[in-house]
Amino acid sequence: MAERIGFIGLGIMGRGMAANLLRAGHDVVVWNRTATRMAPLVEVGATAAASPAEVARRCPIVLICVSDTPDVEDVVEGPDGILRGLSAGSLVVDHSTISPSATIRLAEAVGAKGASWIDAPVSGGSEGAERGTLSIMAGGSDDDLERARPYLEAFGSTITHVGGVGDGQRVKIVNQVLVVGTQLAVSEALLFADAAGLDLDQTLAAVTGGAAGSWMLANRGPQMAVRDWRPGFTIDLQQKDLRLALAAADEVGVPMPGTSLIYQLYRSLQAAGLGEEGNHALVKALERMAGHEMGHA
Amino acid sequence: MAERIGFIGLGIMGRGMAANLLRAGHDVVVWNRTATRMAPLVEVGATAAASPAEVARRCPIVLICVSDTPDVEDVVEGPDGILRGLSAGSLVVDHSTISPSATIRLAEAVGAKGASWIDAPVSGGSEGAERGTLSIMAGGSDDDLERARPYLEAFGSTITHVGGVGDGQRVKIVNQVLVVGTQLAVSEALLFADAAGLDLDQTLAAVTGGAAGSWMLANRGPQMAVRDWRPGFTIDLQQKDLRLALAAADEVGVPMPGTSLIYQLYRSLQAAGLGEEGNHALVKALERMAGHEMGHA
Repeated sequence: MAERIGFIGLGIMGRGMAANLLRAGHDVVVWNRTATRMAPLVEVGATAAASPAEVARRCPIVLICVSDTPDVEDVVEGPDGILRGLSAGSLVVDHSTISPSATIRLAEAVGAKGASWIDAPVSGGSEGAERGTLSIMAGGSDDDLERARPYLEAFGSTITHVGGVGDGQRVKIVNQVLVVGTQLAVSEALLFADAAGLDLDQTLAAVTGGAAGSWMLANRGPQMAVRDWRPGFTIDLQQKDLRLALAAADEVGVPMPGTSLIYQLYRSLQAAGLGEEGNHALVKALERMAGHEMGHA
Repeated sequence: MAERIGFIGLGIMGRGMAANLLRAGHDVVVWNRTATRMAPLVEVGATAAASPAEVARRCPIVLICVSDTPDVEDVVEGPDGILRGLSAGSLVVDHSTISPSATIRLAEAVGAKGASWIDAPVSGGSEGAERGTLSIMAGGSDDDLERARPYLEAFGSTITHVGGVGDGQRVKIVNQVLVVGTQLAVSEALLFADAAGLDLDQTLAAVTGGAAGSWMLANRGPQMAVRDWRPGFTIDLQQKDLRLALAAADEVGVPMPGTSLIYQLYRSLQAAGLGEEGNHALVKALERMAGHEMGHA
């Protein structure tokens, strides 16, 4: 039997996800810090709540999709947070990308109420949220994930159970480290190619299919060649995730010299006011050092 | 009409390439600095020459596959080099990975004899050389490449014409920068995953198909998870190529901070006596910093 679903956080990702839940015929109660963002969802059938606590009181399953660790802490532990409304047997699913150690702590607070937690960060961007094709990396118990699965399928096309609570966030960090590291490789390679006088299209054709290949090269390489910096994922959001990655790596005692370098390079682009460009604009940090711009506008 | 082919350099790559030329029915004259390496090819039909000059005198098309820039310079400009035997109308195809600027200079020296040059570095390793499935990135004129193509097809399954003389070497550098940059990303991500307690197989399954994906992750990730360091390409050879990459980047005035970092990390592994392991053993440089080894033996 379908359960009523709460959805907290109607930003660039959450609004698409909540809309897909409604489209799939679910009963959805929404809350957003900026109340005006609830109106478009209410228009298509959602019920607006006055606080996260109210969402938790009315819904046995509460999904969260906000930005950063402090935002999730607010929504859960704040004066009107879901801990105030949560019943035993409820389930909280956090789709935000936040700290794995904060996740463990929040899951324990929720557990003390007899409720449970799944961390389920997503990848696939706002397009994926709208189209319902997100990839979801879930940490938590089998039973909790099976309970949530029918709802997550409204906006996720791949749902991978990667371990216990916190492991979803850890795998998301792995994902982001891979994304930016590959992005730096693509940036150095293509800026060199251009400065050395190579044709970028021919170069991409020659190297994309072999051992040098990657999703980033195949998808962002051609975009970089025509200087199209529209974001799949912005530099500002990427930096938030890298901050989580570097802190988590520090906690477990492993070095990330490449990721650390990339963080500094993105920082220089934020300082230059480019934080809302796509993460593939990383190459601009190298271009500024070189005094040479690649590609053709 | 088939032309007689000279083949200079019967190392780990060249011997497989020359064997495939013979298998395809071509008339092949070989030369190698260490003469004993010629015997196995003579047994299957090759003719041994006494010097590169003799190869050039007897063959209108001369293929070279040696290690580094000075080796190609020796074979071409040395006291018994091919310049001493080359006729007008001959064609030299260099499959070695060497400096683009040295390539331009050597092509000019060959051009002064009325002969021409193609730089055609390969990727695909010794396996690709043996199976005849190398990728070849060729720089030179259309006519010269069409003349060479039927012979290169004996050992290359993908032959991409990427530009004029030198551009084959430049694209090879692009390829190698991508390979090692992706490798660093994979190394940081998987070492973190392991130290954070994630299951490596599950983690790879969760991230390989999306925006974080790459050939390196899909192919070397599982190998790293079981600590299999057998080389597709050795650290020592990788370092030679990175030295070329950093020098070429310096010549055109672009920074390669990631590649430069990777060069230093590989250097530390060479100092530890690990230069003959596969390039995916890059993660060991991070493991030594962390005092933590990933994966299960």
